[in-house]
Amino acid sequence: MSASRKSGITPRLRGDEGMWTFDNLPVKLLKDRYGFTPKQAWIDHLRLASVRFNDGGSGAFVSKNGLVLTNHHVALGQLQKMSTPRKDVVKAGFFAKTLKDEIACPDLEVNILVSMENVTRRVLGAVDLKSTDKERNAQRKSEISRITKESSDKTGLRSDVVELYQGGEYWLYRYKKYTDMRLVMAPELQAAFYGGDPDNFTYPRFALDFAFFRVYEGGKPVRIKNFLKWSKDGAADGELVFVTGHPGHTDRLNTVAQLEYSRDIGLPLYLKFAAKKRADFLAYAALGVEQERRAKDRIFGVENAIKAVTGEYEGLLEPELIASLKEAEDSLRAAAASKDAWGKIAAATKKAGERRLQTTYRAYAATKAAGLAGTIVRFVAETAKPNDKRYEEFRDTNLESLKFRLFSPAPMYPDMEEFLLARALEDALQELGSGDAFVRAALGGRSPAKVARELIAGTKLFDVAARKRLIEGGEKAVAESKDPLIAWARRLDPVYRAQRKWYEDEIESVTVAEGNRIAKARFAAYGKSTYPDATFTLRMSYGKVSGYELGTTFVAPFTTFHGLYDRAIGHSEKPPFDLAPRVKAAKDKLRLETKVNFVTTNDIIGGNSGSPIVNAKGEYVGLVFDGNIQSLVGRYAYEDARNRTVAVHSSGIIEAMRVIYGMGKLADEVAGR
Amino acid sequence: MSASRKSGITPRLRGDEGMWTFDNLPVKLLKDRYGFTPKQAWIDHLRLASVRFNDGGSGAFVSKNGLVLTNHHVALGQLQKMSTPRKDVVKAGFFAKTLKDEIACPDLEVNILVSMENVTRRVLGAVDLKSTDKERNAQRKSEISRITKESSDKTGLRSDVVELYQGGEYWLYRYKKYTDMRLVMAPELQAAFYGGDPDNFTYPRFALDFAFFRVYEGGKPVRIKNFLKWSKDGAADGELVFVTGHPGHTDRLNTVAQLEYSRDIGLPLYLKFAAKKRADFLAYAALGVEQERRAKDRIFGVENAIKAVTGEYEGLLEPELIASLKEAEDSLRAAAASKDAWGKIAAATKKAGERRLQTTYRAYAATKAAGLAGTIVRFVAETAKPNDKRYEEFRDTNLESLKFRLFSPAPMYPDMEEFLLARALEDALQELGSGDAFVRAALGGRSPAKVARELIAGTKLFDVAARKRLIEGGEKAVAESKDPLIAWARRLDPVYRAQRKWYEDEIESVTVAEGNRIAKARFAAYGKSTYPDATFTLRMSYGKVSGYELGTTFVAPFTTFHGLYDRAIGHSEKPPFDLAPRVKAAKDKLRLETKVNFVTTNDIIGGNSGSPIVNAKGEYVGLVFDGNIQSLVGRYAYEDARNRTVAVHSSGIIEAMRVIYGMGKLADEVAGR
Repeated sequence: MSASRKSGITPRLRGDEGMWTFDNLPVKLLKDRYGFTPKQAWIDHLRLASVRFNDGGSGAFVSKNGLVLTNHHVALGQLQKMSTPRKDVVKAGFFAKTLKDEIACPDLEVNILVSMENVTRRVLGAVDLKSTDKERNAQRKSEISRITKESSDKTGLRSDVVELYQGGEYWLYRYKKYTDMRLVMAPELQAAFYGGDPDNFTYPRFALDFAFFRVYEGGKPVRIKNFLKWSKDGAADGELVFVTGHPGHTDRLNTVAQLEYSRDIGLPLYLKFAAKKRADFLAYAALGVEQERRAKDRIFGVENAIKAVTGEYEGLLEPELIASLKEAEDSLRAAAASKDAWGKIAAATKKAGERRLQTTYRAYAATKAAGLAGTIVRFVAETAKPNDKRYEEFRDTNLESLKFRLFSPAPMYPDMEEFLLARALEDALQELGSGDAFVRAALGGRSPAKVARELIAGTKLFDVAARKRLIEGGEKAVAESKDPLIAWARRLDPVYRAQRKWYEDEIESVTVAEGNRIAKARFAAYGKSTYPDATFTLRMSYGKVSGYELGTTFVAPFTTFHGLYDRAIGHSEKPPFDLAPRVKAAKDKLRLETKVNFVTTNDIIGGNSGSPIVNAKGEYVGLVFDGNIQSLVGRYAYEDARNRTVAVHSSGIIEAMRVIYGMGKLADEVAGR
Repeated sequence: MSASRKSGITPRLRGDEGMWTFDNLPVKLLKDRYGFTPKQAWIDHLRLASVRFNDGGSGAFVSKNGLVLTNHHVALGQLQKMSTPRKDVVKAGFFAKTLKDEIACPDLEVNILVSMENVTRRVLGAVDLKSTDKERNAQRKSEISRITKESSDKTGLRSDVVELYQGGEYWLYRYKKYTDMRLVMAPELQAAFYGGDPDNFTYPRFALDFAFFRVYEGGKPVRIKNFLKWSKDGAADGELVFVTGHPGHTDRLNTVAQLEYSRDIGLPLYLKFAAKKRADFLAYAALGVEQERRAKDRIFGVENAIKAVTGEYEGLLEPELIASLKEAEDSLRAAAASKDAWGKIAAATKKAGERRLQTTYRAYAATKAAGLAGTIVRFVAETAKPNDKRYEEFRDTNLESLKFRLFSPAPMYPDMEEFLLARALEDALQELGSGDAFVRAALGGRSPAKVARELIAGTKLFDVAARKRLIEGGEKAVAESKDPLIAWARRLDPVYRAQRKWYEDEIESVTVAEGNRIAKARFAAYGKSTYPDATFTLRMSYGKVSGYELGTTFVAPFTTFHGLYDRAIGHSEKPPFDLAPRVKAAKDKLRLETKVNFVTTNDIIGGNSGSPIVNAKGEYVGLVFDGNIQSLVGRYAYEDARNRTVAVHSSGIIEAMRVIYGMGKLADEVAGR
């Protein structure tokens, strides 16, 4: 229903822009630009070979025996949880030579999207147009909870309703879920994350950012029909390629007022907050070698976020970007029925901004244990209510995955918990003042250090069995618990609920309702000739392998092992440009001309990490692990000249497996002999 | 005489800024910053080992048998002149295995600075303070001509008076001059200029931009006492290093009004003109393989200039730069006696601007033959006058070098001459109009193509003997010559002289006189605590080997042969990133970890190409061949964070000589065994 003929407005798709849903691939664009028309079987195969990592990230099946390939940095959280002072798989890597050596992940769930159903009519039909925005928000949420519950009861599959096009469409996505994931192989952090934070989001890169897991069911590797066949030579310059994966979040359909709010308030505030967190993690890591080991994934996470958000922020600071989005918005608004929707969203955004400091620094879940306590307190209260009256995350369909995380055996470290909790409470006190409701409930006038010490010293929540007892004991067990952290979470609960209610009633109900009105206008103008904002659900993007112009010269599309050694020697092997010992030792055995990393024009964002890149034959040619600096503005708009997806080349993965890591058998399983 | 104590003004030296004259090295700075104090013998040795290439460029003696090392791109003009369709040494390189194989350059003169004498008092003493600016300009020039003539007559050495600090000082520099230069070795253009125009002025680089000449006298290699000893390992990260060479021209002491003029009028006009020239050369090169060969050094030259000037222009567009220079100028002006000097220079600059189009497009010397004709016509007229009344370039002390160039046997190509002359005349007609005095004299109402065809078809000036006959025949021979190009130059002569007189009387006399007044103020404030603008005379700069931060990450100080192959393979060996056949073939024999290029913080500019980089022991560690993009603003101010000199590493030169080019014997001569 391309209504651009009616309105004269066309969507501004630039270059190879778009994170397309699998029900609506840009078939005409692909045909016109690349002379390629995907068959339905090809599309379905890619969808069923694509894996979502619920920790955040993507991956793909690459062997019939359940082998999943993703990024090392997607695996990092699990690697950290599997490590001990004596066996640090983050630092040393992990290499299972046989099935017996593969070790179970503590709390990793992956999903495969097995079906998609348009439920827009049902969701919108449940909304009474005569109700207030707030009532409609509740009606919509209740209907969604009924749809997912029915689906889950009927099929036993994980069932989510996904809102697309700002409420223009609703889809029921059903997932096959796996929770017995075992680690097969991971390079050393220094090889996977070569160049560290400085090189992150830059290009050229030389990162072996890959890791293999295997999916088990009933104690055995699952047999997989839809896995990606390995390409013999990998991606070639100029080749048409596709990325399937789970981009987390974009704000491309936001109003200009929302972007200006992010630019002027949201992002600067976040960056200040994140800098504090980074300082906290570094301060903890500085306490000793073991503390440094424990903090590694946190430091990576926050530095990665800071660098990404800084790039987004700098993108928003470009006046041209806002101007071009404003122009598009103005023409859409001129054609729209509800012209006041934009103004109402602007007002709600302004209102949200007034409490932004609060939402940032109220540290309900500053540490793992604190987060668990809050979740347990809410879990027992919410599950005592009828299903459709609960907070979304406690609805029946979500409980299984939630319990999987809640009862994770992953290690927690009391000294780390105490250190970080004290810091977070100190920040809250400083930023919000002693009169803030959260600060009052959390500290009761005492010092952050003292409160943190008592809470962590006294809690039993480090023990999985204790958490299970509370959940099983329900409201009564939680109400009577003497655990100081549970008692603390009980005190915070009313503050949390009041804050959340205010947000849902005053902000969300407006932005959703008015967003729906804008979506309606957009649908009237563009139909589905464009794609919805990212929602951490399966998308496909297309593009080609391509270098780019930068600083008068050309960045090459490919890097090789030669380049890795060049960079290390050029920096006299000073960290973060030093070589992992295995990598250094392998130099004379490697085919140095083998491609290591490469760039493509595909449109991706965080959450796509670990996505497969496939060629037109559907063969595995590369592993997405990053976007370049110029791609970061992609949260708001696709920059067509220099936006690039950064990937590990399939040939580099195999060469590293065989020559650096002696994992020839695994390489054979993936790529044949 | 550091009068900063008097005025409270201090010169703004940033980082490792400065192109210092050898009489005034920054001894205190070196001691304070690097704990190094050079001995006079060390300084003299470096001076006497440093070589000026009069074509434009620098070099150094690197063996006792007269071997001079410079850049391939400094040698390029000679290589082009030595090439023929059958033996293209630009493309194929040149490798003399024995002395017998070394071939003479057609017209290469080099100079070694053997003595320096301060003649400020004598030059300024000859100026009658009661005269007009115009008269003083003439008095100054006459006195300089007397000084150089006396010196030349007395010593037989090439003698130049150099104006430093905008007339704050005058120095008599005496040079040992060599004109029997023979080519020993030059890599292929594709290896020397790897990455071509896109990579020019960028970093990381992988250029084997070196060439060897040998100096002969009396048919034998000269014995050289002061040559640079080769360093065993070359430059190391962080090491203190020195560059000695001949920076061509900087405008750091110009007034802000002059810089604004360059920004608003001078540079944009030049860039437009250069783009036309580039188009002309490319159009000629497109005519065939042989034409492409002939035009190669012209295309390199103009593209190099466009890239450098674009960098300078972009530097001037930064408002912060002009603001900081304005601030320094204001405080100098406040302390100065002649406060109206700045205003007078601004007025003269504005006046010059009004005729800038004319000075740019009046193509007296658009081609080699046209230039020769004009020089011959002026030569006979000027040399008939008393020595101190002549144009500077025709004074007795300059005639030997001038005749060396005038009678060069280097090839000229009539079809190329005609093509380029027609284009230049066409541009003059278009830009200046048919009423312009030059256009009228040059075309006489006829078409540029027709005029060019007749001039080039009829001239005998391609023959060295014909040029000699005219010079020897003097004014009479030239007046009676029927050579159409000489007749053409005779018609242009009055236009040329009027234009030059206008410039000297109206512009130069003001900028020199007022510049002297500003120089006086600057001397009163700073003394010699700072350095003079570059004048294509010998300077030393100090600095250290150092990478830099760029785009969130760090550019490594060194590149290696690994990096060269990485870049070639990464670009699928597409030009200009393809490998010269010898380089490609050598891959498995090279020690790939050998350093190829590196960067330092030294302050250099065009003219420094070919300069040696030495360590504190005075050993040869690198060969300057470029500045990075961030250094180009250096024409106006040194940018301390990211200004870098780009050099070929001494180890890379030797490895390439031995392994790629089979020039082990020459490598032994340079570096020992």
